Amino acid sequence: MYKINDNYQKLPGSYLFSNIAKKVAAFSEQNPDADIIRLGIGDVTQPIAPAMIEAMHKAVDEMADAKTFRGYAPDLGYPFLREAIAEKDYKARGCDIDISEIFVSDGAKSDSGNIQEIFAQDNRIAVCDPVYPVYVDSNVMAGRTGVYNEKTQMWSNVIYMPCTAENNFVPEFPKETPDIIYLCLPNNPTGTTLTKDQLQMWVDYANKNGAIIIYDAAYEAYISEDNVAHSIYECEGAKTCAIELRSFSKNAGFTGVRLGFTVVPKDIKCAGVSLNSMWARRHGTKFNGAPYIVQRAGEAVYSDAGQAQIKEQVGYYMNNAKVIYTGLKDAGYQVFGGVNAPYIWLKTPENMTSWDFFDFLLEKANVVGTPGSGFGPSGEGYFRLTAFGSYENSVRALERIKAL
Amino acid sequence: MYKINDNYQKLPGSYLFSNIAKKVAAFSEQNPDADIIRLGIGDVTQPIAPAMIEAMHKAVDEMADAKTFRGYAPDLGYPFLREAIAEKDYKARGCDIDISEIFVSDGAKSDSGNIQEIFAQDNRIAVCDPVYPVYVDSNVMAGRTGVYNEKTQMWSNVIYMPCTAENNFVPEFPKETPDIIYLCLPNNPTGTTLTKDQLQMWVDYANKNGAIIIYDAAYEAYISEDNVAHSIYECEGAKTCAIELRSFSKNAGFTGVRLGFTVVPKDIKCAGVSLNSMWARRHGTKFNGAPYIVQRAGEAVYSDAGQAQIKEQVGYYMNNAKVIYTGLKDAGYQVFGGVNAPYIWLKTPENMTSWDFFDFLLEKANVVGTPGSGFGPSGEGYFRLTAFGSYENSVRALERIKAL
Repeated sequence: MYKINDNYQKLPGSYLFSNIAKKVAAFSEQNPDADIIRLGIGDVTQPIAPAMIEAMHKAVDEMADAKTFRGYAPDLGYPFLREAIAEKDYKARGCDIDISEIFVSDGAKSDSGNIQEIFAQDNRIAVCDPVYPVYVDSNVMAGRTGVYNEKTQMWSNVIYMPCTAENNFVPEFPKETPDIIYLCLPNNPTGTTLTKDQLQMWVDYANKNGAIIIYDAAYEAYISEDNVAHSIYECEGAKTCAIELRSFSKNAGFTGVRLGFTVVPKDIKCAGVSLNSMWARRHGTKFNGAPYIVQRAGEAVYSDAGQAQIKEQVGYYMNNAKVIYTGLKDAGYQVFGGVNAPYIWLKTPENMTSWDFFDFLLEKANVVGTPGSGFGPSGEGYFRLTAFGSYENSVRALERIKAL
Repeated sequence: MYKINDNYQKLPGSYLFSNIAKKVAAFSEQNPDADIIRLGIGDVTQPIAPAMIEAMHKAVDEMADAKTFRGYAPDLGYPFLREAIAEKDYKARGCDIDISEIFVSDGAKSDSGNIQEIFAQDNRIAVCDPVYPVYVDSNVMAGRTGVYNEKTQMWSNVIYMPCTAENNFVPEFPKETPDIIYLCLPNNPTGTTLTKDQLQMWVDYANKNGAIIIYDAAYEAYISEDNVAHSIYECEGAKTCAIELRSFSKNAGFTGVRLGFTVVPKDIKCAGVSLNSMWARRHGTKFNGAPYIVQRAGEAVYSDAGQAQIKEQVGYYMNNAKVIYTGLKDAGYQVFGGVNAPYIWLKTPENMTSWDFFDFLLEKANVVGTPGSGFGPSGEGYFRLTAFGSYENSVRALERIKAL
């Protein structure tokens, strides 16, 4: 008789955003006239900009003609895209990343869920708390996290690094030494980040302790301050200890287009084994490439027109972030983030729990946000709003919140 | 110090098709004037048909407008596509599959590699021999296959079910009872298949022995005989023991477009746990949907125009299959497959090994095929040609082979 992977049974509840969707659907059914503004899930609302639309139309036409039709893509992604990435995301910032170190994928969510596969089961992971749920959940499924404590909402074999107002959202080196460290910077959900100097300390720590950093840089395009690194490879020594995940979802609005990439430097070796080769083998065995049409859209992101257009789009969202940030401040809230990231992280008023504040905001202002506790125990008492709505909705949401 | 997943080190060599690509590249470099015809990798050559091209252009335009823009897709895929699948692939064939049992993905390769994750590590898998490499390799990576024997080319903990000319390519029930049985029908690489009655016996066997069948029906569109099931759910009792994988790569030429789906019936339960819920959780945690544009193309496959166009395309390839099959017969080869599948499986002449015949065919006829031994030990002495080339190339390749 076959047996299931019991680790799945350990997962508490369902995926955070599915829970929110269900709650909102139930509210909406009971209040069909409510004009709900969604500043919850980190989904973008602006359309894909012209350079990428043009590239996709062109690629669709190529697929219609036997002479230009493309079947299976090269295992690691088309060179035209990987060369653009190497040039514009890395070389332009002084990082020496070769195209053989770049793996194109269907998005950073897949990569951040799958990357743990190349590591042994008995590695110990460390995550910031609060944290993007995929890092922990994918390790739960792999049996790496021990036992879940319902009360503390913590896993016995996960090292949590609290990031709260108390430590200015800067994770401290943990007491126990981790094997794999997940860092998402600029951070989802708190919208805060580290300076390059602070990040350098983590790179040094990883190299010193034989740890790997899984560096999720999905929000890199939102960095506005000069002392913040856009890539972990701007730090010295990162090429021996860091894997970087990148996304096109937030810089170019590709949440429904699906494209991302992962950098695994060839200098990362464990007992002589190249992690780059391992990831290449995983990629070649369990994945068959991102769509040609989508890879051409990705290439267009790096064109002059594409760069100008996505800069404008990022600017649009960051203006929303400002509206939300200053609006909440004016309304007397304690607010964080929103400067180098499209997320605004607020302290719930009057010691309300995150979910109580979720219900309060949904019922009284018809505004949907994300409960901080959904991202981990240290998120309790916090709440996330995103700048990915329209300008009009961001303004209206804040008017409602101010009127509460 | 972090540790790697040692199972990767057990994998012998690199992925079959990467090896072939390297060999062909080397030959091509040494013989720059050689006019190589590729009938090796199962990649299609005909362009995407008009109905799907039109759907993609329309979807691209929708992505350009804020009013019709689509961000993250629903976890399991858009209902418009899943409803078309439920109706046309299942209800029309008398199979009662609900849309909640259909999971849209970026392709059957990903699904066939990932599906093993929801099972415990100590399950024992059974595969046909020869077999599509992904089934075994993904289980190697998960540590489920034991030790590799270089000499026999077999894993100690995998049950092999030989499919050769001797048993007419019909796998026999193994002596040891497997937990998970992979069946690809119509079969890659042999191009043969089972009758519906023969498949029913496997469904009965699985139900009786508490085994799960992973049923890869990627070549379903090529079935030409009436007594062959298009879906395993045409067999009685399959909904309690079978997961079906489907692809748009071969019926609609989506190898570079990337779309597939998996059916996990809600009736499959292991000690009360629903495998449908587990796969939904996996899908929601480690995947973020197929591109909207691609899902619209998938929907168009089920339109009247789409159905007519893909039928014509499948007919085109099956005509190639006939050209290759009869050409090889005329040349004196022992040939199999090609009737319900786009693959032709031939016995190598004069007891040549599969790789020797690969080199012979590449050097003497400049034709690329796939060595049968690359698919497993029982594939030794066989060779695969695909019908996915152009008609002209299929004819030319056979002229060259006949002239050898």
